[in-house]
Amino acid sequence: MSGPLHGIRVLDLSSMISGPLATMLLGDQGAEVIKVEAPGIGDLVRGIGAPAGFSPTFLTSNRNKRSIVLDLKRPGGRGVVERLIERADVFVQNLRPGVIERMGLGEEVVRRIRPSIVYVSISGFGETGPYAKKRVYDPVIQALSGLASIQGDRETGRPRMVRTIVPDKLTAMTAAQAITAALLARERSGQGQHVRLAMLDAMVSFLWPEGMAGHTYVEQRNRRPRPPQKRDLVFQASDGYITAGTVSDGEWAGFCRAAGHPEWTEDERFASTAARIRNWDARLELMQSVIETGSVDEWLERLDAEQVPCGPILSRRGVIEHPQIAANELIVESDHPHAGRIRQTRPAARFSKTPAEIRRPAPALGEHTDEVLSETGYSTDEIAALRQEGALG
Amino acid sequence: MSGPLHGIRVLDLSSMISGPLATMLLGDQGAEVIKVEAPGIGDLVRGIGAPAGFSPTFLTSNRNKRSIVLDLKRPGGRGVVERLIERADVFVQNLRPGVIERMGLGEEVVRRIRPSIVYVSISGFGETGPYAKKRVYDPVIQALSGLASIQGDRETGRPRMVRTIVPDKLTAMTAAQAITAALLARERSGQGQHVRLAMLDAMVSFLWPEGMAGHTYVEQRNRRPRPPQKRDLVFQASDGYITAGTVSDGEWAGFCRAAGHPEWTEDERFASTAARIRNWDARLELMQSVIETGSVDEWLERLDAEQVPCGPILSRRGVIEHPQIAANELIVESDHPHAGRIRQTRPAARFSKTPAEIRRPAPALGEHTDEVLSETGYSTDEIAALRQEGALG
Repeated sequence: MSGPLHGIRVLDLSSMISGPLATMLLGDQGAEVIKVEAPGIGDLVRGIGAPAGFSPTFLTSNRNKRSIVLDLKRPGGRGVVERLIERADVFVQNLRPGVIERMGLGEEVVRRIRPSIVYVSISGFGETGPYAKKRVYDPVIQALSGLASIQGDRETGRPRMVRTIVPDKLTAMTAAQAITAALLARERSGQGQHVRLAMLDAMVSFLWPEGMAGHTYVEQRNRRPRPPQKRDLVFQASDGYITAGTVSDGEWAGFCRAAGHPEWTEDERFASTAARIRNWDARLELMQSVIETGSVDEWLERLDAEQVPCGPILSRRGVIEHPQIAANELIVESDHPHAGRIRQTRPAARFSKTPAEIRRPAPALGEHTDEVLSETGYSTDEIAALRQEGALG
Repeated sequence: MSGPLHGIRVLDLSSMISGPLATMLLGDQGAEVIKVEAPGIGDLVRGIGAPAGFSPTFLTSNRNKRSIVLDLKRPGGRGVVERLIERADVFVQNLRPGVIERMGLGEEVVRRIRPSIVYVSISGFGETGPYAKKRVYDPVIQALSGLASIQGDRETGRPRMVRTIVPDKLTAMTAAQAITAALLARERSGQGQHVRLAMLDAMVSFLWPEGMAGHTYVEQRNRRPRPPQKRDLVFQASDGYITAGTVSDGEWAGFCRAAGHPEWTEDERFASTAARIRNWDARLELMQSVIETGSVDEWLERLDAEQVPCGPILSRRGVIEHPQIAANELIVESDHPHAGRIRQTRPAARFSKTPAEIRRPAPALGEHTDEVLSETGYSTDEIAALRQEGALG
């Protein structure tokens, strides 16, 4: 068995990030994923920042899949997708609510063809409500979920976007887990079902545990408001940046010793975890005032010796070169048949008996159209006829 | 069936966020989760910002679990945990590498008691390598993974932390998916296995698709460097902030019409998607110059009419009150028996046949010690003896 999801067949009509990244994770874990793309340029992510159809983002959101091009508006294309549904365990789509039904591939139709299928609908905002039909981009979810406010400038109050597409990618992670849970339920009950997920719901739920801590108690009486903190845990050393945490008394004492100021533990402003939080900015300014006198390496060594949690703040290049990343064998290089040598991460979770792995590079548009059709029972003549009809783009 | 994971038993020795949030998701989906806590104050998250053992973060990371207090250093506590392992499908721990083995509950020991168990180890940095034994906090992973650099100030180069604990929570999501996949594999093969996950690996993998796009091609020749962008998609209207995207030509034309400047579509600097990215700051400045002349509501209405993706940038309070969030029935209020009335989100993914739901409030420390022991076959006298011994705290 070459992955915990070995033998599971996923028919993926999704594009962009929230769907494709979810199905890639399933593919990493052994599922057989068929990516259905429209004729022309296929998934738009292919072209972002790269003219050749292999943008970096496409490469690392679509490995372990095969690509088939189908024109679903033509009878031949329609016939093929029905035959693919017959053999599929999971059907994934992330079109705007209502669109897949208009295409004639709503749950009811698909379930009639394959009763036990896990049917997955990923939306931006939800399937009903004032935003249901609106177009979605990641920043709109950052805005609506409160993330952009949470990240805002504390001096000016101006919101700020997080510079990685957390809503899109988090939705993919949430979808992958939900799909896997539905497959487990199906394995035990024989029944497939419809899994629905909105990016907005995934993001707000993700933020909640600490991001919405101030709004968890409906009555605010239980709440001790936290003073506004202007500084974050970024410290400038003489030749770069580090982070360091001093939450517990032991860690604070360790920091004071590392700083050569053991007497700072006597300072009442910092005498307990609660006091250190109360006097957050004063404490961080004090820490900054000594950290700037030494280099990154000096500080990390001193802090490690005192068991104070710490680390260098790495650039992207620094991440690739860091010895802990190397020890984890996290980043793997491989030769992509079309794109050349590329770097990506192996699947993060490791399975002792059914390892997840990179088995296939991200496919060229329609690279596996003939192969998949042939496996699905189409003869060479039939494939030629479909191509003639324009059903294969 | 009351959730796709109904009937699955999870024995959870983890604390803080990365483990508990993962097992809460499994509990939301019907798994029976027993949270084992140490005598005294239990999971440290109970006390963060709340003296009564029910911090907001604890409440919303530990619902759908029962709590049992065990002193694992005492023979009686040890005996109980072995009996719980006999009945468990999943064993989760997130101690520093090596610690669980020193406690005598390493995989080998646990698997001898329950051969088919899914054994889960969540670490901060990995199980080997220079950082393996270091203490971990979320900001250290933000620093090491490159996230703090990506979020950095583009003018000064100073790194910046993301103000929600993405590494901790993302690790939980990744773990929940991997555990579910291992359960599915076990359902089909009968075999349990060891699932290992490092926060650092989860975070770097998550960043990769677009965050590391510039480092995906090993040879940089294929790369078109993106000009540095000083602005983000935050626009100040006369009475608040909005976001709006103009990626496609149609969206840009829509924005120009909404702005009352259809002639802007003639501007060569913004005549294609590529040109608009190239002239990012100039475009956003132009957009800002008109957006500040109208209110949030005016702009959203105009942009919606032109089908330009947009949304208000909501404060946390605004999220709670927003009509789309209401339409999604995302936020639910309930009375917690100890903490009073609280607000949280329902599980994000919705299952048509096996709904995930909030069945239990987050438990008081040791609230279910007697109940769980009794179910596990301990008599009232045996429970009294364990208590006498100090095994139950």
